[in-house]
Amino acid sequence: MKTVLITGFEPFGGDQLNPSQEIARQLNGRVIAGCRVIGRILPCEFGAANAALRRILRETDPALVIAVGQAGGRSDITPERVAINVDDARIADNAGAQPVDAPVVARGPTAYWSTLPIKAIVATLRAHEIPAAVSQTAGTFVCNHVFYSLMHALRARRGVRGGFIHVPFLPEQAKQGQPSLPQKVMIEAIALAVAVSVRTRRDRREAGGQIH
Amino acid sequence: MKTVLITGFEPFGGDQLNPSQEIARQLNGRVIAGCRVIGRILPCEFGAANAALRRILRETDPALVIAVGQAGGRSDITPERVAINVDDARIADNAGAQPVDAPVVARGPTAYWSTLPIKAIVATLRAHEIPAAVSQTAGTFVCNHVFYSLMHALRARRGVRGGFIHVPFLPEQAKQGQPSLPQKVMIEAIALAVAVSVRTRRDRREAGGQIH
Amino acid sequence: MKTVLITGFEPFGGDQLNPSQEIARQLNGRVIAGCRVIGRILPCEFGAANAALRRILRETDPALVIAVGQAGGRSDITPERVAINVDDARIADNAGAQPVDAPVVARGPTAYWSTLPIKAIVATLRAHEIPAAVSQTAGTFVCNHVFYSLMHALRARRGVRGGFIHVPFLPEQAKQGQPSLPQKVMIEAIALAVAVSVRTRRDRREAGGQIH
Amino acid sequence: MKTVLITGFEPFGGDQLNPSQEIARQLNGRVIAGCRVIGRILPCEFGAANAALRRILRETDPALVIAVGQAGGRSDITPERVAINVDDARIADNAGAQPVDAPVVARGPTAYWSTLPIKAIVATLRAHEIPAAVSQTAGTFVCNHVFYSLMHALRARRGVRGGFIHVPFLPEQAKQGQPSLPQKVMIEAIALAVAVSVRTRRDRREAGGQIH
Repeated sequence: MKTVLITGFEPFGGDQLNPSQEIARQLNGRVIAGCRVIGRILPCEFGAANAALRRILRETDPALVIAVGQAGGRSDITPERVAINVDDARIADNAGAQPVDAPVVARGPTAYWSTLPIKAIVATLRAHEIPAAVSQTAGTFVCNHVFYSLMHALRARRGVRGGFIHVPFLPEQAKQGQPSLPQKVMIEAIALAVAVSVRTRRDRREAGGQIH
Repeated sequence: MKTVLITGFEPFGGDQLNPSQEIARQLNGRVIAGCRVIGRILPCEFGAANAALRRILRETDPALVIAVGQAGGRSDITPERVAINVDDARIADNAGAQPVDAPVVARGPTAYWSTLPIKAIVATLRAHEIPAAVSQTAGTFVCNHVFYSLMHALRARRGVRGGFIHVPFLPEQAKQGQPSLPQKVMIEAIALAVAVSVRTRRDRREAGGQIH
Repeated sequence: MKTVLITGFEPFGGDQLNPSQEIARQLNGRVIAGCRVIGRILPCEFGAANAALRRILRETDPALVIAVGQAGGRSDITPERVAINVDDARIADNAGAQPVDAPVVARGPTAYWSTLPIKAIVATLRAHEIPAAVSQTAGTFVCNHVFYSLMHALRARRGVRGGFIHVPFLPEQAKQGQPSLPQKVMIEAIALAVAVSVRTRRDRREAGGQIH
Repeated sequence: MKTVLITGFEPFGGDQLNPSQEIARQLNGRVIAGCRVIGRILPCEFGAANAALRRILRETDPALVIAVGQAGGRSDITPERVAINVDDARIADNAGAQPVDAPVVARGPTAYWSTLPIKAIVATLRAHEIPAAVSQTAGTFVCNHVFYSLMHALRARRGVRGGFIHVPFLPEQAKQGQPSLPQKVMIEAIALAVAVSVRTRRDRREAGGQIH
């Protein structure tokens, strides 16, 4: 049976919760689309997250990887299109580091595309009445750092696909007027994303961009 | 058995859907907290909505009334605090009318408070992981028109409580970046609101205001 | 020469700045539309702000009053339509008080309308390329408290008109993605609002409402 | 005297206005930081915009290029960090084309960094009280198409720097609640950006990223 790796993050930025952590915990051990899901938690630290990810890739040898992170303030489940080779931290990470305009990987390419079927994931979530949209930026904090590191690491793993999906705040995290989704809806969303990704080798061709 | 009236609206503003319509339909006939729910649809028209509401009040003689409407762009289920005595339409209603700065009820008071336990409703929805917040304005379109008309009509119905709850867009209605919720979450939310309202005679005293 | 009173607020909520404070300072002493402007700063405290306002009204005997406050997160200069009779504080005021669901004025009416020509103010600001819109809620914090107190006090001052205008954050206050305006644009906006208000006895009748 | 090229766009998406067009017109012919500014308007069309840009580069042989475009809904003047090699159009361009997931340049690299001093531009605008922030995505429509095409073309022009700056809506374009800035503030902003870019060979190192 093939393995799908789902990673979540520990809470950061002073928060006590991170919905991506619970997603990885809840999906750990499930069988989806004939694959066994392994869920793991990454530290929210530049460098250490990357190192942990590479160790987990060696240990679990997955056929597919979906890294999940929290995007507080977004209203949709957002598969990311592209990872960029820069760390530029607006706040300190959980180890106190705050890199500015440093590369994720020295001499790495400027950017990597996700190899998940991001349009098919969005279409499937919407068909299940779950708010979803493609995102054109994963930011420049630890989420993008892990996303870029993942795609860089997968170059050496032939045929292994991967990418990153951001999820909104939980209702208890949202401040006045900020959007949020129930945890159970997010878990359902990532389970659906796993199933779609396993089954879809060639992504759908339908508009998912943004004007700006 | 006491009766609870839930009203929804037909679609407006060029939309084909209105989640409040489906809420009224789906809850019609249910028994919640020992009360029979009657769900009805109002036209999205100034005047006609008010007339339909008063006729339905006479026919159904409810002990409690929750009018529900769509607030596209909001992220939370929002019980409204106050109805104001003005119609000021940014777009035409479904009959083509667009009143500007006209009173809902000539010589009526400037505003009416909701008599629903709005803080208890918000607390209950959040305890069920549903995004919810008190709103300080129901706008100046047909929703506020119905809310004000309802509270004006209830002055003559001793002991009957009522108010208005706005719901977000459905995922298929939301444009780029706009928040939304699944229909089933909204139906669950209004069912919970009915149960809380029936059981809570005196609202909780906890902060639910806004800075501005 | 008639007097126009402009009030601003001291900073609150942990901020070091409040653009309304600088507006009141900069306009103090100016002559606009044949009237002398008096600018005063109010404490951001429930009760004390109200008391200070009534004392200033006695001292200055203005023909027109525009209270100004900060609405962090809004993008427009927003003349407020209606003040409601409730204090419901999401955060503590500058004296540490945090009233919940208390009336501003015991046994006062539910709400008061602004008596400023709010539509004419918006039209004039837009003609000067300044972002502006009517607002249907002044919140439930000290801004609404002062607005309601002002309109209640003006009932005893025949022919004196008044109201409240909210202004956005300054660029140095705005957090990631929040809108803001330069201080000089805000000062120009309130000076224009004074001129329009002095000259306009009967407001324009054009749409300025909101769907919700 | 060295030449700085500023490009703007014609209106698109059914709009009658585009603030970037007026910026290019108003700055055309000005001398800033010892350089002559040439302002030109690009069609809002995939392919044709790229062709026009390359022709203008040959004709004007600039030392620095700042392409400007409209980002309706943003509140800040936003220098873009990175251009990505994809066209994915949510709406049709002005010639009716709507490419989906097509490369801007076949076999081009995934992304190019801006070579403008984007952090120094943001710092300077803020020092002038103009709302500004670095943006991590220029979208996937004609703006990103021109940005990517520009950076690809500049590879063959040794020492010529360039990049893209998005500007908000004008007040007359903004719909309910959308942020905007006066045209004159935007023109001042781009003039400042030219001056800073001419004078700054090595960008400041200060945080300008986003969490997501």
